[in-house]
This record gives sequence, C-alpha cells and structure tokens, in this order.
Amino acid sequence: MRARVHVTLKPGVLDPQGKAIAHALEALGFDGVADVRQGKYIEIDLEDGGSGEGNAGAAEARVSEMCEKLLANTVIENYRVEIDS
Amino acid sequence: MRARVHVTLKPGVLDPQGKAIAHALEALGFDGVADVRQGKYIEIDLEDGGSGEGNAGAAEARVSEMCEKLLANTVIENYRVEIDS
Repeated sequence: MRARVHVTLKPGVLDPQGKAIAHALEALGFDGVADVRQGKYIEIDLEDGGSGEGNAGAAEARVSEMCEKLLANTVIENYRVEIDS
Repeated sequence: MRARVHVTLKPGVLDPQGKAIAHALEALGFDGVADVRQGKYIEIDLEDGGSGEGNAGAAEARVSEMCEKLLANTVIENYRVEIDS
C-alpha cells in the first residue's frame, strides 16, 4: 500500500524558495508566471500487514500521525494524505 | 490557471533524504514502513493571458519546458505536470 503526502506552506507564510524559482523562470524568459510555491512530496510504501491494519482508512490515520509528529511543521505547513491501495 | 508539478527521483537513484525519513519514522515507533521517497511539489500560478495562451494544453507545454530547463534535473529526476484551469 502506498501513501502519497503533500506538505505545503500555509497561505501567507513567506516562501523564499518559491520566490527564487519565480525569479529564475523570469530570468529564463518565461513570462506570465504570477506566483510559485514550493512544497514537499513524500511517497511512503507501507507493508500491508503493518500493525495488522489492512484498510486504507487505518493507513491514512497512521500516515496523518506521521505528518503530525515528523513530516510537517504544522505551525507553518499543511499536509494532505492520499492512499493508493 | 494553476500548474501542479511533481518532481521525483527516478527509480534506482539513491534517496538519502527518504532513507533518513524512514529511519526517523522507525525511531518514533512507526513500524511497517517499507520505503520512503521524497520529491518536490511545485505550484505555479500562471497568468491566464501569459504569452497569449488560453488553453490547458499550451500551458502544460510551457510548464514542461520550465521543468526541462529549471525545475527538474532530468538525468536523475522525473517530472509530472498537471494543469487546473
């Protein structure tokens, strides 16, 4: 079972990395770029038998807990979890 | 118009950042994690009138070019572009 996690900065939080990308794109001649935001994308392969949880709902809860504890800084970041079974 | 870009390491390319996450999860007591891969997630807001291109197909081509030239290292990374109109 695979979990796909997106960690993105909350709206309003300054994103210097995104700004740098936007400026670099402009310098390369790409016009019409209004804004760029960079986040993280994490793929987690879960063993199906892990913790005896067999269903997507339980896996989603477990990965959300991973986000809360490690993957995201919830003060400034949002996260989104999707489960591919 | 918003483009969402995923940049991921190609299969077989070593991912020390993903390995570090996997070890950290294990240290926190999350078992059943077989593998972790970390990539980048980039949201690009495009001005609708940019370069006179009004349709999603043209925007996708333009963002793919951005990936080739700046956002991804195509030697070791794959990218995927999605357009929300």
